[in-house]
Amino acid sequence: MNEDLIYLDHAAATPLDRRVLVAMQPYFSEQFYNPSSPYAPAIVVRRAYEEAKHVLARHIGAKSDELVMTAGATESINLAFSGIEGHIVVPNIEHHAVLAAARAHDCTLVEADSRGFVSADSIKAALRPTTQLVSVAIANNELGTIQPLRDIAQVIKFEREARLLRGDITPLYFHTDASQGVGQIDINVARLGVDLLTLNAGKIYGPKQVGLLWAASHVRLMPQIVGGGQERGLRSGTENVAGTIGFAKALSLVIEHRKYESDRLTSLRDGLQHKLTAAFTEAIMSGHPKHRLAGHLHISFPQLDAERLVFALENRQVLVATGSACAANKGTRSHVLTAIGLAPEIADGSLRLTLGHLSTEENIARAGDIIVEEITREYARVKR
Amino acid sequence: MNEDLIYLDHAAATPLDRRVLVAMQPYFSEQFYNPSSPYAPAIVVRRAYEEAKHVLARHIGAKSDELVMTAGATESINLAFSGIEGHIVVPNIEHHAVLAAARAHDCTLVEADSRGFVSADSIKAALRPTTQLVSVAIANNELGTIQPLRDIAQVIKFEREARLLRGDITPLYFHTDASQGVGQIDINVARLGVDLLTLNAGKIYGPKQVGLLWAASHVRLMPQIVGGGQERGLRSGTENVAGTIGFAKALSLVIEHRKYESDRLTSLRDGLQHKLTAAFTEAIMSGHPKHRLAGHLHISFPQLDAERLVFALENRQVLVATGSACAANKGTRSHVLTAIGLAPEIADGSLRLTLGHLSTEENIARAGDIIVEEITREYARVKR
Repeated sequence: MNEDLIYLDHAAATPLDRRVLVAMQPYFSEQFYNPSSPYAPAIVVRRAYEEAKHVLARHIGAKSDELVMTAGATESINLAFSGIEGHIVVPNIEHHAVLAAARAHDCTLVEADSRGFVSADSIKAALRPTTQLVSVAIANNELGTIQPLRDIAQVIKFEREARLLRGDITPLYFHTDASQGVGQIDINVARLGVDLLTLNAGKIYGPKQVGLLWAASHVRLMPQIVGGGQERGLRSGTENVAGTIGFAKALSLVIEHRKYESDRLTSLRDGLQHKLTAAFTEAIMSGHPKHRLAGHLHISFPQLDAERLVFALENRQVLVATGSACAANKGTRSHVLTAIGLAPEIADGSLRLTLGHLSTEENIARAGDIIVEEITREYARVKR
Repeated sequence: MNEDLIYLDHAAATPLDRRVLVAMQPYFSEQFYNPSSPYAPAIVVRRAYEEAKHVLARHIGAKSDELVMTAGATESINLAFSGIEGHIVVPNIEHHAVLAAARAHDCTLVEADSRGFVSADSIKAALRPTTQLVSVAIANNELGTIQPLRDIAQVIKFEREARLLRGDITPLYFHTDASQGVGQIDINVARLGVDLLTLNAGKIYGPKQVGLLWAASHVRLMPQIVGGGQERGLRSGTENVAGTIGFAKALSLVIEHRKYESDRLTSLRDGLQHKLTAAFTEAIMSGHPKHRLAGHLHISFPQLDAERLVFALENRQVLVATGSACAANKGTRSHVLTAIGLAPEIADGSLRLTLGHLSTEENIARAGDIIVEEITREYARVKR
């Protein structure tokens, strides 16, 4: 990466941490064996793979045989939804993968409020006797709003107990895509009160195309990929040894430095936010002011065109996103911004700035100055 | 890898080629951007990804927009079978992934002959008016037998033409898992006469957990993983940039050296085979004597226990397989050996020796001597 670039899109992709690469390296060309092979060097590989799963499981307070290793969050989410036959409840601001998986079923989209917050009450109101799954991301990937998962878990627990009292055995599971929150939020599955949890290594400085689905032992999943019967038959295919070892290292690093990094990013983000809102009184902040990921800053400049801003900033070596990467590429307006009721002329001038490992006091200060200059120039142009 | 080890299990896993790692390396921590992001550095990454797909497509004589990148052969096979609603025909010696995917449908298992050869006539006999898919691996992963795909393609073509004449629009597709044959067989899809083709980077010194499915444009696939709509909506999830670039490099290298490497391995394999059959007249060779992958040697030692042999050889630093890696791990007899009618007392003494990049004249000669010694010792023990 060009040293002069200032990367403000950590929510879209993160660079592989060098220490993660070092952990993976032995498994590329040296310990490359198929973990299902019977000889000792392969058994050593199998053990390293199992140990990495133990590490992953420990970090979320689960057992390693409840983990299914996947090729990323999208596959994990699809697998989480696979065994569901009944009704599904999801917020209308969820990631495309969740919305697409939900729409393959009878589903209710719950409205988030203007801050992108999904209340436990709104989930409660959407539950039906046939509801089998509620899926809420731990934090919204565009706005950074952190959801009240524990409160939602309580609502789900009450519904389960009510069913039990009625003798109704319809299962009700709670899934969260925690891909965006790992670096900053406690993801202990018992404390969150979830039955299923998705993680993505590629969002936490780990290898791309590596994810996991944790499912409590009482959850019924339907394998989507059948074959050799790996991962307890839930996801066949030769195990991703290097990827899983890298994932475990990445998760360990992120959790080890969680407190420090959250504080650091919050401070940098708040400084940047202050600089931008002080310079532009017309700017509109989105996302929850308090319950928000440390590195997330979603800001709209009414009347401006975010795509023009992305290119103008890119010319100044500052890389930012407009909406989420997927939606941006299609030139469509973000469904999240529409869902929270942002008027089109505001939504279309929205930038998502996400800080992370590559952010420093120096480069965030510089980015702030550059953004102020470019926005000023754009406002001068449109108001001319 | 310990330099003294002699690896004779290239069909189970291959080490990542250093040149492939070099090709992938820039995309780990430097050019790590999400290919869907809008700024130029991400567009550079997107182009590198698309170029790698072009390279892959060119090597099989296809267009890159007909490729779906996957997490390996198992996922590719599952996707190939996904859109099928009718009857399926597969040989009874196929890989577990194919058998499992087929068994989710109405399917007929065609018997291979004692050499593991699947004749076009046997496929023809199994076709029904409702048959929508025939899937035959280009070469059997245990025996190395190369299948007559072109003859089978002819049979399928006749059936298609007959349907057309009757005004029957039931589609009929031909899929091959070419994972085991790439290094040695022409895999041009037009010349093979297939409609769908699976490849696996992990079997050709490329990255693990990377595969592709090629599907001709007339083939209808049903996505198994939905979400952001990547890979023409057929396989959502952030694209595997480094993996695809590594796959393209690995395939290019393997195809570039195909002739040389095939000749080299055939010569080494034949020498090893000669040594073993000369030493043990009771040994039984399986697989087609002529139409066989260059590096494959399947040999059974009646009355001996293959698992004991694996461990005895491992103590002498020679790594071999008994049956396929998946089956071996479960302690069950190989379904392939049962299917070709090998008696249990012969099947249970079977070794699969697969040569590859790590094989040299010196280490194959040494392996041959060690195997002869160990088999001699085992026969002395059981005949005592």
